[in-house]
Amino acid sequence: MSLLNRIDEKDPAIIGQELYRFAGALYPICRSITGDGIRRTLSMIGERIHLEISELPTGTPVFDWTVPKEWNIRDGYIRVPGGNRVVDFQKSNLHVLGYSMPVHATMSLDKLRPHLYTIPEHPDWIPNKTSYYQPQWGFCLSEHQMRALEDREYEVCIDSTLSDGHLTYGECYLPGRTSAEVLISCHACHPSLANDNLSGLTVATALAESLSGCNLRYSYRFLFIPGTIGAIAWLAKNREATQRIRHGLVLTCLGDSSNFHYKKSRQGNAEVDRAASHVLRHYAGSNGILEFSPYGYDERQYCSPGFNLAVGCLMRSLPGVFPEYHTSADDLEFIHPAQLAGSLRICAAIFDVLEHNQRFRNLNPYCEPQLGRRNLFRATGGDSIGLETNARLWALNLSDGEHSLLDIAERSGIRFSVIREAAVLLMENGLLAPLPVTDSHTSVETGGSPAGVRARGGILPD
Amino acid sequence: MSLLNRIDEKDPAIIGQELYRFAGALYPICRSITGDGIRRTLSMIGERIHLEISELPTGTPVFDWTVPKEWNIRDGYIRVPGGNRVVDFQKSNLHVLGYSMPVHATMSLDKLRPHLYTIPEHPDWIPNKTSYYQPQWGFCLSEHQMRALEDREYEVCIDSTLSDGHLTYGECYLPGRTSAEVLISCHACHPSLANDNLSGLTVATALAESLSGCNLRYSYRFLFIPGTIGAIAWLAKNREATQRIRHGLVLTCLGDSSNFHYKKSRQGNAEVDRAASHVLRHYAGSNGILEFSPYGYDERQYCSPGFNLAVGCLMRSLPGVFPEYHTSADDLEFIHPAQLAGSLRICAAIFDVLEHNQRFRNLNPYCEPQLGRRNLFRATGGDSIGLETNARLWALNLSDGEHSLLDIAERSGIRFSVIREAAVLLMENGLLAPLPVTDSHTSVETGGSPAGVRARGGILPD
Amino acid sequence: MSLLNRIDEKDPAIIGQELYRFAGALYPICRSITGDGIRRTLSMIGERIHLEISELPTGTPVFDWTVPKEWNIRDGYIRVPGGNRVVDFQKSNLHVLGYSMPVHATMSLDKLRPHLYTIPEHPDWIPNKTSYYQPQWGFCLSEHQMRALEDREYEVCIDSTLSDGHLTYGECYLPGRTSAEVLISCHACHPSLANDNLSGLTVATALAESLSGCNLRYSYRFLFIPGTIGAIAWLAKNREATQRIRHGLVLTCLGDSSNFHYKKSRQGNAEVDRAASHVLRHYAGSNGILEFSPYGYDERQYCSPGFNLAVGCLMRSLPGVFPEYHTSADDLEFIHPAQLAGSLRICAAIFDVLEHNQRFRNLNPYCEPQLGRRNLFRATGGDSIGLETNARLWALNLSDGEHSLLDIAERSGIRFSVIREAAVLLMENGLLAPLPVTDSHTSVETGGSPAGVRARGGILPD
Repeated sequence: MSLLNRIDEKDPAIIGQELYRFAGALYPICRSITGDGIRRTLSMIGERIHLEISELPTGTPVFDWTVPKEWNIRDGYIRVPGGNRVVDFQKSNLHVLGYSMPVHATMSLDKLRPHLYTIPEHPDWIPNKTSYYQPQWGFCLSEHQMRALEDREYEVCIDSTLSDGHLTYGECYLPGRTSAEVLISCHACHPSLANDNLSGLTVATALAESLSGCNLRYSYRFLFIPGTIGAIAWLAKNREATQRIRHGLVLTCLGDSSNFHYKKSRQGNAEVDRAASHVLRHYAGSNGILEFSPYGYDERQYCSPGFNLAVGCLMRSLPGVFPEYHTSADDLEFIHPAQLAGSLRICAAIFDVLEHNQRFRNLNPYCEPQLGRRNLFRATGGDSIGLETNARLWALNLSDGEHSLLDIAERSGIRFSVIREAAVLLMENGLLAPLPVTDSHTSVETGGSPAGVRARGGILPD
Repeated sequence: MSLLNRIDEKDPAIIGQELYRFAGALYPICRSITGDGIRRTLSMIGERIHLEISELPTGTPVFDWTVPKEWNIRDGYIRVPGGNRVVDFQKSNLHVLGYSMPVHATMSLDKLRPHLYTIPEHPDWIPNKTSYYQPQWGFCLSEHQMRALEDREYEVCIDSTLSDGHLTYGECYLPGRTSAEVLISCHACHPSLANDNLSGLTVATALAESLSGCNLRYSYRFLFIPGTIGAIAWLAKNREATQRIRHGLVLTCLGDSSNFHYKKSRQGNAEVDRAASHVLRHYAGSNGILEFSPYGYDERQYCSPGFNLAVGCLMRSLPGVFPEYHTSADDLEFIHPAQLAGSLRICAAIFDVLEHNQRFRNLNPYCEPQLGRRNLFRATGGDSIGLETNARLWALNLSDGEHSLLDIAERSGIRFSVIREAAVLLMENGLLAPLPVTDSHTSVETGGSPAGVRARGGILPD
Repeated sequence: MSLLNRIDEKDPAIIGQELYRFAGALYPICRSITGDGIRRTLSMIGERIHLEISELPTGTPVFDWTVPKEWNIRDGYIRVPGGNRVVDFQKSNLHVLGYSMPVHATMSLDKLRPHLYTIPEHPDWIPNKTSYYQPQWGFCLSEHQMRALEDREYEVCIDSTLSDGHLTYGECYLPGRTSAEVLISCHACHPSLANDNLSGLTVATALAESLSGCNLRYSYRFLFIPGTIGAIAWLAKNREATQRIRHGLVLTCLGDSSNFHYKKSRQGNAEVDRAASHVLRHYAGSNGILEFSPYGYDERQYCSPGFNLAVGCLMRSLPGVFPEYHTSADDLEFIHPAQLAGSLRICAAIFDVLEHNQRFRNLNPYCEPQLGRRNLFRATGGDSIGLETNARLWALNLSDGEHSLLDIAERSGIRFSVIREAAVLLMENGLLAPLPVTDSHTSVETGGSPAGVRARGGILPD
């Protein structure tokens, strides 16, 4: 049974509610690229899936970068001395510039102003801003709050610490029949922003839950990491291991109401690029396929020229393009249970293509085999054939050892799952034989499986 | 002289009438995949061209299939016992389900009904249905006839035989200067249906007539065969010989009023695919070029992965798409003399491209040769050059040994015949030399021709 | 500094006026493919740039052609005997058919008429016609002049000589750091026609002036030649030397008010084709990219199959297409200072791409380098990056040794100069290293430059 079928056995409304509830539980945490916020987040994910936590000390060199000091924050505000807070970290963790140095001072509005950030075109929204590598402090507030500030003295306080500590990330590894890997990566460093990227975290967690215990062709590695520095740190610590990565997806912005977008890997025509494009077209009615570009999320690192991994990025709305991006408007109302559930389905459909994409050999390559006497063709001449029969003809015609099921799905314009069902049926009828899955690098069976399983290639027995 | 020129010497109206008359003569015969109907059809074709008839006994294994029993029918009807026939095979041979077992019984309308086939959305038309491999009997009738049936007892009679016999097909082989072959295949198994496929039969017969006695580069093999089982049987009996096939066309539905369609071979960019596409564009103003798919007519067998021959399918309306397909409405009024003649021309134009497509070498490759002093350029500077001069410049510029005349026609956007005339003229003026036609497999001169003819390649001397 | 930057330091209005004034000075001269007109033209160009003049004697064989007799003309007219001239060479040198044999006779209008050429659809315009290789004489006149001719005797006189002499052309060679060449060719054989091709002559002259004294990667060769026979003669005399030509442009029709067109070389995807297409798109907002065809100007000869040089043709209006082409309406009012200056800029931009197109190697290929600490990234997280940062990310991501700067510009959709500036900045910051410019044929440094210069490849030091 395919992963998508397993998911579809459950009520999608229930799946959506579960995902949304988990996003809601993670929402209040003040995350950053280091510190207790991301630790707590990983801990909550670790209650659902087996997560291995790594901690790299401040100062660890990772390629051209260095693990920064750990940042933690307890409070932050601007207030009239002795009066009420006019900007209050307790009300929204976006109010403090991420990685702000500690400060406690009284100063005039004029002195304060260079430390204040707003979005004039959306006067109700608080921007999300950070300064990881340049020591600064600052507050983010709505334009309305800004305009209400009087020209007077204010007490400003950021009760934060920037000190030697660790960079923390979590990994969930699900072993498959081969050591060849599918990488799923999502950034876990944003504070109270829902679409970017609680949506990615919750969908990735649910995917790992769904895959657990499946008989999988590939091994799956889920990374829950701080953006940029986390991906760089992981790659630096796992440089050799990246050779096992066959396919990968960065997951972000998967909860809003937009249709899907898939940004291709740097390779541009990798199997994951073709699988994701096929799935978007055939399962989501979307042609939102974008060419690779070197700006974006952590695909930037996975697709740097030294690695050049086959890692694309799946999104709904495009980060940096939708107005709510990196503002307080990217809240729990901006994401929806049904959209989260739909994203889970699309990821599962992509994995299904990767899991089951293989080549077959037509055992009757000279002319068509007589499908009729095997009850694989409509019986009475003169009617048009249906989609299933058509898929069988395609699978027979192109199973010459050169074409994979995905190739056949693309050339025929028929959904992968229908082609795959046709191939399985033809195999069961002795008309197709699976070709061994060859993997040039490390596709070694992880032991224990009899040779027969290997010969059956990627066909999941369950 | 090109084949198209030879055809164009005759009045197209006369050609059309001849084709149409022959279709009319073949129309009444009740054909099926075996039996006397196809024998009589082949006999009538054999009066026009030299046809070699093959008969394979029932039970002969042909790849995954077996030659079925031979079917013959003399009569069939439904009538009120002792009364008039309400459905009568003598009025239309479509009335009996093809390959019906014999039956003679009296039964209620309720018992009869599962054996009756109509087309409710076209209540005047009789469908054409068959059951070659599942023993059944049945009647096809119009929806109006069906509705007029009263709820009473009927005498039903199908006076058919299904017994050991033969599968019959005809072959016309026209030897050319080389043993490399062009295959033309058309199915001859349909009863009184005009477009599908008396149109193909008559056009193929006329093509064979036209090619007879020509000095041909290729040998031509015309197959008049029952659909599917006939192509499979021929391929099974001629498996080695298929290596000689360079190009091929399945001809069907060539008499209706639609513009042309060409369905590419499985190879997709074979020379016949490019030639047919060029001809449709430049000679018929049609862009009806379709990608290969494994459902259709006998290209399914020729393009099965074990053979993967360069065989496409030329049609006007698409089988299975036009409403009259496989109904009594596909009658002699549905096809037209002018359309049959036009189809003959287009086939001839495709053959002309195949016959004359070759590569030349520019004997003055450094700069243009001075065409003016050879009277091959317009004389007075300052005027624009005409199509002929332009074709000469293209032929000179691209005759580097890499480009065939078809390549040049495609890149220049100029009709093949104009490019070819330019090349011949330049050759006659000592500016181009033909390159030997190399054929990796079996393009052996069939003896007798002097070496000089071979060096001249595909240029027809007449 | 790029060539374009050097040009942009001057007021474009002044550049345009200079170009236009020079075109005005050349306009009155009666040029042809041989004779004193082209000699005087080359002499005036030689006052501005160093021009080496070659003279080939009449009768010299050049490939399939022969250098024709030299043509000179002093006067020509049609007049009523003893009366006024009704057609007068002194008023327009277009009035005499180019290469007219001498004639002095009195004849009836009927006898004269076959020697007269007009343009009925533009009754005010005089056509430009020639007969280089067929001995003829004739007059070109406006349709109005023609209609005014009475049916009577006329004195016709063409005071020309056609005698053994020379074919003359000029060459300006600007040595660069390598002997690999860029060829710029323009025809100098047309009489008083402004766009075709005083525009090409003046732009080419100004380009040679601008390049003089620059530290150039390529050597530049400017040809000022009679069309067709001049290009053929030059190629015949320099057959071996053509192996040094890496890129080339034919310049013609560059003064009118149309946007640009670039006709690709026969190779179709040569570096100059890609450079010119990029420049037209990004610097002139033009998508006027035309496929190669063997009719046109001297790209016909450079792209003949024996040479197949990477030479395209840059134009504004297309020769032979705009109505004023080869008529008296192609006069000094048809061309404009601003358009000439704009053409100079576009040529310079194309040269800039060729000069600076090279490959780099990312010295930090594993993950992104930390641009922030080098002040190469915007400082505060959460803002969108600008074009410059984006160009840096592209240059880093694709500098894998496979992609040139032009490849990166094309894939990113960013203007070449922005990509190049990014690469230079990254190189200065130790993040990119230039790869040695490898040139399979003759890209030998012309001596004197230290090895370090060579390693820096095409980066102009100034």
